[in-house]
Amino acid sequence: MYLALAGGVGGARLARGLCTLLAPEDLTIAVNTGDDFVHCGLRICPDLDTVMYTLAGRGNPNTGWGLAGESWRTFGALDRLGGPAWFRLGDEDLATHLRRTHLLAEGASLSEATRQLCDAFGLSHAIAPMTDDPAPTVVHTDEGPLAFQDYFVRRRCEPPVRHIDYSAAERATPSAALWQALHSPRLRAIIVCPSNPYLSIEPFLSLRGVRSALEEASVPVIVVSPIVGGDAVKGPAAKIMRELGVDSSAIEIAKFYSRLADGIAIDDCDAALAPAIAAVGLRAHVGPTLMKDTQGQVRVAQSVLDFASLLAGAQTDKGHA
Amino acid sequence: MYLALAGGVGGARLARGLCTLLAPEDLTIAVNTGDDFVHCGLRICPDLDTVMYTLAGRGNPNTGWGLAGESWRTFGALDRLGGPAWFRLGDEDLATHLRRTHLLAEGASLSEATRQLCDAFGLSHAIAPMTDDPAPTVVHTDEGPLAFQDYFVRRRCEPPVRHIDYSAAERATPSAALWQALHSPRLRAIIVCPSNPYLSIEPFLSLRGVRSALEEASVPVIVVSPIVGGDAVKGPAAKIMRELGVDSSAIEIAKFYSRLADGIAIDDCDAALAPAIAAVGLRAHVGPTLMKDTQGQVRVAQSVLDFASLLAGAQTDKGHA
Repeated sequence: MYLALAGGVGGARLARGLCTLLAPEDLTIAVNTGDDFVHCGLRICPDLDTVMYTLAGRGNPNTGWGLAGESWRTFGALDRLGGPAWFRLGDEDLATHLRRTHLLAEGASLSEATRQLCDAFGLSHAIAPMTDDPAPTVVHTDEGPLAFQDYFVRRRCEPPVRHIDYSAAERATPSAALWQALHSPRLRAIIVCPSNPYLSIEPFLSLRGVRSALEEASVPVIVVSPIVGGDAVKGPAAKIMRELGVDSSAIEIAKFYSRLADGIAIDDCDAALAPAIAAVGLRAHVGPTLMKDTQGQVRVAQSVLDFASLLAGAQTDKGHA
Repeated sequence: MYLALAGGVGGARLARGLCTLLAPEDLTIAVNTGDDFVHCGLRICPDLDTVMYTLAGRGNPNTGWGLAGESWRTFGALDRLGGPAWFRLGDEDLATHLRRTHLLAEGASLSEATRQLCDAFGLSHAIAPMTDDPAPTVVHTDEGPLAFQDYFVRRRCEPPVRHIDYSAAERATPSAALWQALHSPRLRAIIVCPSNPYLSIEPFLSLRGVRSALEEASVPVIVVSPIVGGDAVKGPAAKIMRELGVDSSAIEIAKFYSRLADGIAIDDCDAALAPAIAAVGLRAHVGPTLMKDTQGQVRVAQSVLDFASLLAGAQTDKGHA
């Protein structure tokens, strides 16, 4: 059994590849909820939705968020009423938020609400929030502290980041699905998807017991680098790295995870970085990491699973095993 | 200046007629909020919306609720996700609920949120909630206590009513607009619209100080009977009257308001009831009360204003003046 830690677009794409290769009972996909917020009364979970829509084959490939073939009647009317236009709400996407909010109001946990939504979208693989507790990430910028979506969507990641606050996640308990997968005797590897380390993965690591579970894991922990050729495939990861004073390089990604991970999958175009990554203490696996289409997603997933097998075979060499 | 107390459809129609005849500064329309609820995270105010949409000429004349020309994309998707299908949410109507919920979340009072929505709908006349406080009406039925919309929409008013609980309204304070209108030296009459006395008007009377303000008013208090020819023009008023053991007759409406009102406008078809109504202590004004179209709304509004002038002239005869 494999555990994948996923943020938004990159996480969703690798998750889709893994779902193609692994049976539902052999994969747990845990998803960042540090981006979640309540907007106009609705509980919105952007990363959970991106993963769910992507796995259902319903996601909008152009935006990376929302549903394909969406209409905007409610959003247009909301705009005319002077409502907040910075967060776009598609008509069909709205139903997801309404249903989730309704389930939570009825007393369901976020895990249970996610399970019901995934069932309704016809998914067979398990998607779980990283936690059922509130765990909002706060981004401290030159414009002051910003709630995540204020930073990410309203301000389009423009204000330079100075510091990121995970204190809500530090008080949160991992979801049952995440915790059980981390401690399952069937676990064969933990896969950190190519997601933003600061905005998507650090929230996981801030949850009680998760960082130490990865540090002490007896199975390989593999990171797929979200930095390819010195830039982020999508999103502000490279920009934030530079603002925080580190190079936007797969080497820095390896350093970020050096105490937690055993190996890092880097793109073919970054093959020359392998020696420097070895110096950080991680095995580098050079292969494909781009996942524009389903074929690419399966190819990368297979490459990552092959790397996991390789590392599992070399398990006795693990520095921290 | 006139104050109108309004529930849903009947109140909205008379309010529209009054708006045609009176300048904005000469009319305050206070609206029942006992029907309000939170649904899927959204604050929904059915009577405020019906009045607002009707005054804007945007209401759906066939249903009495919602917007004309509505589409149902979100609601259809919500239904497919297993969401609550009993309360229909149109795509454009949803924008009203999202905007209201957003304004309330930002700290606006319901009065302020209503003002902003009415501005956005281009209304010049003032609509105010009866209170800014929560004041949910609970309907006790043979199936037990039901939240208002559970009774009214989900259970379609089918369970026999045994008792109605206004205790939340009893703890609520009238909105500033309602209170100021009740005590304005410019007030010339209080008009109780043809709304359900139990479900739409009693919530007003339960608010702190409103019943006594009507009892002690130095201006005429006029009720427009919602019962015409022994039946309700719309809604369950007649059914509830029978369940509570009273005849569904304009005479019983007069009895209901006998301590509060000076006169009651009854429909031409009920002219024969005038002597019995006089015996209850109310002046009966026989005239048109049906308001299917704009012309009918203006005709009834004019008839009611004429009745108010007549009673104001005879003010010294008032029993409780």
